[in-house]
Amino acid sequence: MHLNLNADLGESFGAWPMGADEALLPVVDSANIACGFHAGDPLVMRTTVRTALACGTSLGAHPGFPDLQGFGRRKMQLPLAELEALLIYQIAALAGMAQAEGGRVTHVKPHGALNNMACEDTAMAEAVARAVRAFDPTLILLAPATSQLAIAGERAGLAVALEIFADRAYTPLGTLVPRSQPGAVLHDPAESIAHVRRMLEAGGLVALDGTVLPTPIHSICVHGDNAEAVDTARALRAALEADGHVMVALPDVLQE
Amino acid sequence: MHLNLNADLGESFGAWPMGADEALLPVVDSANIACGFHAGDPLVMRTTVRTALACGTSLGAHPGFPDLQGFGRRKMQLPLAELEALLIYQIAALAGMAQAEGGRVTHVKPHGALNNMACEDTAMAEAVARAVRAFDPTLILLAPATSQLAIAGERAGLAVALEIFADRAYTPLGTLVPRSQPGAVLHDPAESIAHVRRMLEAGGLVALDGTVLPTPIHSICVHGDNAEAVDTARALRAALEADGHVMVALPDVLQE
Amino acid sequence: MHLNLNADLGESFGAWPMGADEALLPVVDSANIACGFHAGDPLVMRTTVRTALACGTSLGAHPGFPDLQGFGRRKMQLPLAELEALLIYQIAALAGMAQAEGGRVTHVKPHGALNNMACEDTAMAEAVARAVRAFDPTLILLAPATSQLAIAGERAGLAVALEIFADRAYTPLGTLVPRSQPGAVLHDPAESIAHVRRMLEAGGLVALDGTVLPTPIHSICVHGDNAEAVDTARALRAALEADGHVMVALPDVLQE
Amino acid sequence: MHLNLNADLGESFGAWPMGADEALLPVVDSANIACGFHAGDPLVMRTTVRTALACGTSLGAHPGFPDLQGFGRRKMQLPLAELEALLIYQIAALAGMAQAEGGRVTHVKPHGALNNMACEDTAMAEAVARAVRAFDPTLILLAPATSQLAIAGERAGLAVALEIFADRAYTPLGTLVPRSQPGAVLHDPAESIAHVRRMLEAGGLVALDGTVLPTPIHSICVHGDNAEAVDTARALRAALEADGHVMVALPDVLQE
Repeated sequence: MHLNLNADLGESFGAWPMGADEALLPVVDSANIACGFHAGDPLVMRTTVRTALACGTSLGAHPGFPDLQGFGRRKMQLPLAELEALLIYQIAALAGMAQAEGGRVTHVKPHGALNNMACEDTAMAEAVARAVRAFDPTLILLAPATSQLAIAGERAGLAVALEIFADRAYTPLGTLVPRSQPGAVLHDPAESIAHVRRMLEAGGLVALDGTVLPTPIHSICVHGDNAEAVDTARALRAALEADGHVMVALPDVLQE
Repeated sequence: MHLNLNADLGESFGAWPMGADEALLPVVDSANIACGFHAGDPLVMRTTVRTALACGTSLGAHPGFPDLQGFGRRKMQLPLAELEALLIYQIAALAGMAQAEGGRVTHVKPHGALNNMACEDTAMAEAVARAVRAFDPTLILLAPATSQLAIAGERAGLAVALEIFADRAYTPLGTLVPRSQPGAVLHDPAESIAHVRRMLEAGGLVALDGTVLPTPIHSICVHGDNAEAVDTARALRAALEADGHVMVALPDVLQE
Repeated sequence: MHLNLNADLGESFGAWPMGADEALLPVVDSANIACGFHAGDPLVMRTTVRTALACGTSLGAHPGFPDLQGFGRRKMQLPLAELEALLIYQIAALAGMAQAEGGRVTHVKPHGALNNMACEDTAMAEAVARAVRAFDPTLILLAPATSQLAIAGERAGLAVALEIFADRAYTPLGTLVPRSQPGAVLHDPAESIAHVRRMLEAGGLVALDGTVLPTPIHSICVHGDNAEAVDTARALRAALEADGHVMVALPDVLQE
Repeated sequence: MHLNLNADLGESFGAWPMGADEALLPVVDSANIACGFHAGDPLVMRTTVRTALACGTSLGAHPGFPDLQGFGRRKMQLPLAELEALLIYQIAALAGMAQAEGGRVTHVKPHGALNNMACEDTAMAEAVARAVRAFDPTLILLAPATSQLAIAGERAGLAVALEIFADRAYTPLGTLVPRSQPGAVLHDPAESIAHVRRMLEAGGLVALDGTVLPTPIHSICVHGDNAEAVDTARALRAALEADGHVMVALPDVLQE
């Protein structure tokens, strides 16, 4: 069965490095690359695109709120027309960088607070889907399984890849357990791997209380903030391959 | 003979309007649209693209330095790799906005201090040309006649459209007379029209001292900051049409 | 009886002018000056401070969300520690500009979405009060009458000046009728003047349905976006003076 | 003899940490704290001020060009009135943060390209001195020994503290050997210490070719980008103390 690992990359900005991109890129199949609004800058974007292409990683735009200081993690309430425009702007900027490097962007995954809000707010989710479709209707929308964003993407006729988080616990409603609650984040790599395996076997999200929310699972989101995180991602990949999963780039997961 | 009028548009930002875009768009053939770094924002860009397409105006990206407060008019010294990347970023963002609106960008014209510096500094001119070519080698580079930028564009194999300024006096070297000097700016519409006609007849730049620098002339740059400027542009257009010039979009000027 | 007119000023940014500051400054008693995060820039701030001092207008800091494109009108959810820090930063920057011009800032009034949120959210209101007090406990907090912000300011031991809006209708809860509802904004100057007189006579907010919410009233907020708005402010001032009100700077209103 | 160690601190921004501030603060006597334009943000500024005050480190404002992506290292040409205003803005913002934390700013040191330009360009140097004096004429200007900036500060009547760089070689003109040339940067801690001792003994800058440019020396600039740099700073401090120098905060160096 085809499966995908994705991670957020290209989150350095100017003089400030972030993440272990060089180490992580060979471990994942698809990269969500920051587009300059919450992280990344034009040169970081170009370098990340180049490195990702050299690794055979598929490219995704990772647009966020215009909030560099807050890293796109602070909720903002934007008129939907502004939201659509800034999504097109960011996706296009990354697509152009890919084009300049001889590659192409194949998916879009919103970042941080924008993603969280679009997962719950139907109007925002629809604006995201409209923006992606307006720019390029062949782009894949990478969205959390069972989210409003995934539903809006499908309704808009986009190809939607559904992701789960390797290190986050789920509520029975399919949302992430807030970080403030105990058990929200799985710190032990072995636990993360078990968590992912449980969901793949169950064919759905498995909540903290055992509730199963059936959903296709196309991709698993991992982190690469530090060497430890990269090790966890590597161990997860090895475990999935040992289970017989064929790890592929995002467009190939949806092909089957 | 085919000729073109171009103007800078889409220079509003957020709550701050600028320029008489609605009035100017029907008067010009090609629009240089700000890309969000020195002016413009994603929504302004989208709206400007939409209006320009409705008017049949051809679309150009008008990238500038990352200096909103200085409106891109303050000189900045950027490493060339950063310069290239931020040009690709801005051009791509506008191209994406055009794509989302069913149109396409056909030319690039750098803005303000970036344009001035690239007109004199060969290394910067070549970086601009490299960026345009990397993103899309079929884009036209709109550059001041006789500038280093025009030369670099041609050397890079780009289609280059050469422009003159309707309201600015030239030195015998082909550069603009600095605004601090008397006679640098032509305020009288009739003088502007005479200035343009003189250059078109001479087949080259005509400097303050009468020196003629022979050059093809494809386009004339006009302004639209206020109602008066739009009137001047309209009068110039009428005069040129009366002289038998056929006013066309930028790609069509180079077709002949 | 002492009374005060206040208005938002210094909202130009870089090449983009906004507001009729020169015309409005002589009409109001106190200026709320943008601090560079949602509008204004260092040079605009300095110029506005200088002009206000020349007019004898008292100076207030008008800090906003870090959202230039949205003019500080888009809601943002910031951690309270960040909110406090960015308020101190902006107030201090304006205070320094006043100091450089031989004047001093005497009040603080939050702008736009930040003000609206702090009027309803107690935790935010308290963070605003903490920031003002941390920087300078002698500063006056200018807050809408009956708002959480006013209450938090008083609880923090700040001098609080209470304002009403000349051109906005109130709900029976003391909040502004949303702009989307009919009657929310009074466009006719005569109506605005009648509205203000009614509230001054009633000694409280007068809601659309006639409900009176008793409150001291120290200041009236007017606008100066255009020549018409300035005329309205001038007419209101004349009417109040005709009624026997003595119009004074904000610190003097609270002295009596 | 009194002497001072200074370092640039507070250069983190939002989610991006930079520098080993916690480790470096106890090693230096005076901190140049970024003011939010090239690095730092309001919360980083507040935290840095708080930590510095707890360490007994004296506080300096470290204003830079409005160029976050370029870390204030890219040359910009600003009108002098704009330069003055943005310096006052930044210095005031940090002074306010200090005030909110019960401390006070006692010096100013420009950052990066702004500092480099002001060391060579008399008009810019004078603008810096004017800005400092306008905000608070009792502030110390910390400037490279023999620079135009130091001269302009003295001419403006400011107290000027003269600094040398522990790890940079000098030309016979008193400027820094460009980083592109061999020997420009001293990487070996022992060499840095010897370099500093040589200059203190000679009572002036000692250029690569042995030329001595006599100058008082009040402070030595060290770096704290990483653990190694902190070790070097610590070793330098120990060496200077062993030589009988009494290390004090910047205001105390000038008192004697």
